[in-house]
Amino acid sequence: MTTYWCERAWLPGGIAEAVRIEVLDGRIGSVTLGAERAGTVLNGLTLPGFANGHSHAFHRALRGRTHHGRGTFWTWRERMYSLAARLDPDAYYRLARGVYAEMVLAGYTGVAEFHYLHHGPGGAPYASPNAMGDALRKAARDAGIRLTLLDTCYLAGGIGQPPDEVQQRFSDGSAERWAERVALLKEDELFRVGGAIHSVRAVPEHELPEVGNAVPRDRPLHIHLSEQRAENEQCEAAYGWTPTGMLWDYGLLDERLTAVHATHLTTQDIKWLGESRAGACFCPTTERDLGDGIGPARSLLDEGVRLGVGSDSNAVVDAFEETRALELDERLASEERGRFTADELLAAGTDHVAAGWPENGAIAVGAGADLVTVALGTVRTAGIEPSGVLFAATAADVRTVVVAGREVVRDGVHVLIERPETVLAKEIEALWQF
Amino acid sequence: MTTYWCERAWLPGGIAEAVRIEVLDGRIGSVTLGAERAGTVLNGLTLPGFANGHSHAFHRALRGRTHHGRGTFWTWRERMYSLAARLDPDAYYRLARGVYAEMVLAGYTGVAEFHYLHHGPGGAPYASPNAMGDALRKAARDAGIRLTLLDTCYLAGGIGQPPDEVQQRFSDGSAERWAERVALLKEDELFRVGGAIHSVRAVPEHELPEVGNAVPRDRPLHIHLSEQRAENEQCEAAYGWTPTGMLWDYGLLDERLTAVHATHLTTQDIKWLGESRAGACFCPTTERDLGDGIGPARSLLDEGVRLGVGSDSNAVVDAFEETRALELDERLASEERGRFTADELLAAGTDHVAAGWPENGAIAVGAGADLVTVALGTVRTAGIEPSGVLFAATAADVRTVVVAGREVVRDGVHVLIERPETVLAKEIEALWQF
Repeated sequence: MTTYWCERAWLPGGIAEAVRIEVLDGRIGSVTLGAERAGTVLNGLTLPGFANGHSHAFHRALRGRTHHGRGTFWTWRERMYSLAARLDPDAYYRLARGVYAEMVLAGYTGVAEFHYLHHGPGGAPYASPNAMGDALRKAARDAGIRLTLLDTCYLAGGIGQPPDEVQQRFSDGSAERWAERVALLKEDELFRVGGAIHSVRAVPEHELPEVGNAVPRDRPLHIHLSEQRAENEQCEAAYGWTPTGMLWDYGLLDERLTAVHATHLTTQDIKWLGESRAGACFCPTTERDLGDGIGPARSLLDEGVRLGVGSDSNAVVDAFEETRALELDERLASEERGRFTADELLAAGTDHVAAGWPENGAIAVGAGADLVTVALGTVRTAGIEPSGVLFAATAADVRTVVVAGREVVRDGVHVLIERPETVLAKEIEALWQF
Repeated sequence: MTTYWCERAWLPGGIAEAVRIEVLDGRIGSVTLGAERAGTVLNGLTLPGFANGHSHAFHRALRGRTHHGRGTFWTWRERMYSLAARLDPDAYYRLARGVYAEMVLAGYTGVAEFHYLHHGPGGAPYASPNAMGDALRKAARDAGIRLTLLDTCYLAGGIGQPPDEVQQRFSDGSAERWAERVALLKEDELFRVGGAIHSVRAVPEHELPEVGNAVPRDRPLHIHLSEQRAENEQCEAAYGWTPTGMLWDYGLLDERLTAVHATHLTTQDIKWLGESRAGACFCPTTERDLGDGIGPARSLLDEGVRLGVGSDSNAVVDAFEETRALELDERLASEERGRFTADELLAAGTDHVAAGWPENGAIAVGAGADLVTVALGTVRTAGIEPSGVLFAATAADVRTVVVAGREVVRDGVHVLIERPETVLAKEIEALWQF
């Protein structure tokens, strides 16, 4: 049994002082208020570990490299594809190990990896058909973060279009073959397997039910939904439905489903998502970076949708920046403040349902022992009320991160990987040497 | 003479390696490419010092303290007023010393302080009539940052309304008396004096010419312009002009003028600002925080307006975050990427014209020797192209800051003030004990 003593901790009932947390087998075994200082002392404010509901780990190699010239989401995608074409399982393992280490340092204790780069060049299966997924599993294990691999069904280059040369690496040829491959993946203590429909562009409608049926009921199913207006237009032209309408029509909208982005929605889309108690994963820093626009986060929550956040393209990896951006971009769109309460924002930032660990996301008995301690006395956080931490702290203020009861970050340093920044620099430089 | 050797430096012609910068009397005396390593070594990427074109130092005490309940800009202002009412020159000196230290640590080498809190409670002048301005001057001097005090004319609580109890502290009673007081301020090497019209709400139209005439031609004149729609509506109802139209009508639009925020503008407003070669100071992190909306930064630049950024409410103090937000919020509004080039963004981030030091803002012979070195090998900046630094770095990645030739930050630590974070914590806690 491990004991942590928190100077302050954000519990489901609010922020308390002098909180003892006992950990048993990776879970929180007891929470005690007004406890005496003993065990590992966590000074500052301890929060539940943040959940990264949407990641494409390899996009990290695009950070600070896509600012040349004007463009759109679609021109950015071309550069992303040129990167994807150069990754193999070994390179992806090494890169992702650095990326996941950065995530833990930034306060994330779990990540849902939206994984579509599962085949070799030209679409040839690897000898070990999940070589790329295994690379991600090992990278996450080494970095000490929980990983839910959302193995992604990606069959078409657009509605009615075959995959192009790069996209062939994303395709299993059919949903059935996709499901057969995914069934080979084995879960472990910190690794789970869910599924994803890349988008209504990339999975033909007749294949949608197969994907839905292949994902176990207690595992997440994600989809990129209405990130760009062009997707809506193409979907409506081809099927006469919005992308959300397609999911509703095929019975895929339920609590297990998480709609990623959910940016350009109709009022009816929002109602469908809410009635089905689906989730929406906003990725505000990426949505800024890609010029997606500002989605209706508040309206979705009001209609009953579960909200979460994700770092997506990993242009920014900062659980605090991501979470507060949900509120700040709402303010830009609505010209009002206080669109979400601090508790609502924390709930979104720590929503591990979308990330595949629904039992986590709070400092409460029975939950996984995932904790993030942030310093309240840095130049950024000095003088704030503790409940204002989501508006003031950055990844640089994270001191300790505990995942499943184990300290992975201590004093702002990753305990398992020496200098993740050097790993990232080396692997990314190598990928762009061509 | 001091010599700096930069591993990389962002010069007006682009990023170069192995650059020697010699400093003479606080200015850059020579810049040499391909130089041998000698003098003080600055590893990473050295940029011109950033300019903070708009600050209200005391708002820093509101960080992480205004997230309770719903509201608007106007409800936020009530809380800000309750804070303003409690500041005296001693307290303001101590607080601002910490705030300005935070700014230097975050990459700013100059700040324009929009200063309206110049009188005592009830509007009584201090025995030393510029006691509050002097407090700011001393705070900036101790923190090692250049300060341009934009002493602000604030006479009315709204169009045709007297100042309320708190606002009385902002008022000199008339523009003439304001000008007499401001004339007493004495500049020094790192301290300059400009002026500001708080807004068209706070200065009656017949007083506008007096303010314009009182500010020397070579010193900046700022105004809060069209931050909120309500201001536009009130101005048009009272005067039949937009706020920009008012300035145009009174001949106040010129190169010396900087319009702060410039959020809700008409096409004609943008044309007027451009034709007059005025400046616009965007404060994106504050504009997010206050729900102001997204202003037309790209259109303004296209029409000939000089762009800059400011930390304004100091809810966030991070020159990198502020600068990239100019681009990122443009992307949200336009749904396009690459709205500004990297050089345009750097020019905006380092525009010292609005901040009162037009000779600064580039690593070039004759400019003030203001340098900011950012580490390119942190977990955030690892793997980027150096020219992508504005998209990847944060204040936490700043290693060295040189102001007027003097190292003020070394290895990320403020050289002149021990633990600015402790200063901030102490002073802010004290202000909220009531």
